[in-house]
Amino acid sequence: MHHADPFLLQLLIIFGSAKIMGEVFERLKLPAVLGEILAGVVLGPYAFALVNKDVITDGHPINSLAGLGAIFLLFSVGLETPAGKLLKVGKRSMGVAVGGVVLPFILGFGYWKFSGHNAGQSMFIAAAMVATSVGITARVLGDMGMLKTRAANIILSAAVFDDILGMVLLAVVAGMASAEGVQWGRIAVVLTMATVFSLFMIFIAPHLVHRAKTRVENMSTRQAPLILALALCLALSVLSEKIGMAGIIGAFFAGLAIADHAKNWNLEPGIDAIRDFLAPVFFFIIGAKLDVRVFSGEIMVAAIVISLLAIISKLIGCGLPALKEGTKTAIIVGTGMVPRGEVGLIVALVGLQMNLVDQKAFAVVMFMTAVTTIVAPVALRFLLKDEPAEEAA
Amino acid sequence: MHHADPFLLQLLIIFGSAKIMGEVFERLKLPAVLGEILAGVVLGPYAFALVNKDVITDGHPINSLAGLGAIFLLFSVGLETPAGKLLKVGKRSMGVAVGGVVLPFILGFGYWKFSGHNAGQSMFIAAAMVATSVGITARVLGDMGMLKTRAANIILSAAVFDDILGMVLLAVVAGMASAEGVQWGRIAVVLTMATVFSLFMIFIAPHLVHRAKTRVENMSTRQAPLILALALCLALSVLSEKIGMAGIIGAFFAGLAIADHAKNWNLEPGIDAIRDFLAPVFFFIIGAKLDVRVFSGEIMVAAIVISLLAIISKLIGCGLPALKEGTKTAIIVGTGMVPRGEVGLIVALVGLQMNLVDQKAFAVVMFMTAVTTIVAPVALRFLLKDEPAEEAA
Repeated sequence: MHHADPFLLQLLIIFGSAKIMGEVFERLKLPAVLGEILAGVVLGPYAFALVNKDVITDGHPINSLAGLGAIFLLFSVGLETPAGKLLKVGKRSMGVAVGGVVLPFILGFGYWKFSGHNAGQSMFIAAAMVATSVGITARVLGDMGMLKTRAANIILSAAVFDDILGMVLLAVVAGMASAEGVQWGRIAVVLTMATVFSLFMIFIAPHLVHRAKTRVENMSTRQAPLILALALCLALSVLSEKIGMAGIIGAFFAGLAIADHAKNWNLEPGIDAIRDFLAPVFFFIIGAKLDVRVFSGEIMVAAIVISLLAIISKLIGCGLPALKEGTKTAIIVGTGMVPRGEVGLIVALVGLQMNLVDQKAFAVVMFMTAVTTIVAPVALRFLLKDEPAEEAA
Repeated sequence: MHHADPFLLQLLIIFGSAKIMGEVFERLKLPAVLGEILAGVVLGPYAFALVNKDVITDGHPINSLAGLGAIFLLFSVGLETPAGKLLKVGKRSMGVAVGGVVLPFILGFGYWKFSGHNAGQSMFIAAAMVATSVGITARVLGDMGMLKTRAANIILSAAVFDDILGMVLLAVVAGMASAEGVQWGRIAVVLTMATVFSLFMIFIAPHLVHRAKTRVENMSTRQAPLILALALCLALSVLSEKIGMAGIIGAFFAGLAIADHAKNWNLEPGIDAIRDFLAPVFFFIIGAKLDVRVFSGEIMVAAIVISLLAIISKLIGCGLPALKEGTKTAIIVGTGMVPRGEVGLIVALVGLQMNLVDQKAFAVVMFMTAVTTIVAPVALRFLLKDEPAEEAA
């Protein structure tokens, strides 16, 4: 058509190139998500500019679609995190999760603040260092037939807890930051709202969903559970933006609230497909937003220090609480919790959109994410290669 | 967030209101799609304006999302239309399909042209009267336990054929119209391209897909068949826009080409979920684009005439070729083919976007779609209520 909207062509280029690079990375035994991001870096406005700067600005259809991708990414993470399971998580896993949240946050905040940045940006850098992306670890463990070992068990349970702690932390950080400056009254209000919202979603919402179960199943609309899940995800995303947090936090908690019914309602094939369609757009756009020219010597040093802190803080923070299981298990647990992946990136992006994280800090987080995501599976394969695959939990 | 993109809130309002109205319509035993459209009419810029005019203009994220909804709608129609099945469709169904395409087109074109409109608009009105939306009929037949009857068999096979004829016709009409005026050379080129594209997609593409089967299944990317299906859908949509047709035509043929493998690759849960998420946005936006103020007395007369022609032309065009099966069966077949539904609307919208269909003609098509979609199931229930449910094909 003569006045064709370029949207479809842009979407094709972005989705296609992201998935091609993803496939190349998979074949090189590297995480696909890094390939998808790299496609964005290379084709984005700061490098070859096949995709121009309009596309990564607010209000552009592709940028909105990428935002929706982040929302569905976190929604699907929430769906895999049944709140009910939390009560059954062992003490050991809880210790691993808490250690793996507290230490990276303190080290990240400390380093960034003392190297001369403001508290808002330092909180975002620190929050981006918190969330574990356990998908990569789970895949390595699965490939090596180790998913039933004690170490795997601890890692996977701790990750559930970790996700929730990470989101509550982001809610608090984003809430405090959106209060602008030191308006203590406003900070108190936002903090209270973030806390109430998180607690409500973790402890009360799942019961409400449970009580609405029969009603949902008796609706006339076809695929009513899926439709309601989508509506809940959108509604809570909007709500959490309205109360000064990021949309993804609401999406995550929406997933959490209905996670117990995800299997019964057969939600995952559908939600996963929407995520698989939109997430590559999100990762591409994240890559496209990286201005590669900011990597000066000074930034490289900061990026390397942050990456080392990110690795060490998880090794110690998660390894120490697991030490009673034996040194080897403790090291495996610590290593398994190292990859940051998508959640760290989303946190950094939220900061970028709130104008609290600058291009340099964004680049540092991207670098840290790439390093932890590449290093962890390599180290894990090395550590596990002598372990007997049949060792049961 | 302070500078929050209003996109998520708009999406929530649109998706939420469309599904609520859909549910209300379902409970009233009316097609949900009409409820979704009505939500758009009522909340759209020409009525209560909860959603403003920006949202329905080119380049707005919601409008782009709606376009994607139309694409996935047609992609899923294509996925349910295996090209291989075409060769097995009986002569009777083929006759029903051809009759149900030719007669509505001739009557629609004739009436519109002779009431003083140009040929381009008349072709679009005629093309919008062609495509049967068999979903509504299939549902009534299913509700009444008649899906295995001879009449149902003829209707469902004819609908497969009807979809393809309708899309080829739209390809030709859109192609001719995009050639602007009577540039015969350009019309010939576009017509040839549309024909070659359609034939290629129907007869050759499925074989190519079949040959690529093992390669697809051996890819490293998770959910590789779904990812490739999405990429193919986007690629062919872009291609068919580039050669002067509508994106939805490419999407339909993409679905057609891989329909034989849809089950094996388990594509439907995922594609259906994407469609269920985006199609309500499309229907809402279609409603929002309707300027209710155009309904003057003159337009009402045209709308009623077109609706009557739409009903009569399918009754005769589809009933006559089925007459040898007995009068009752012929009437059931004719009635079952009456509903137009989404495809007619999409055709009209393509015309509106190409500036070939004006607001008045668009309103007429909307009216015709609503009438046929409401009348057919009521008539069908009435016709079938005395039939023995166990009558086998």
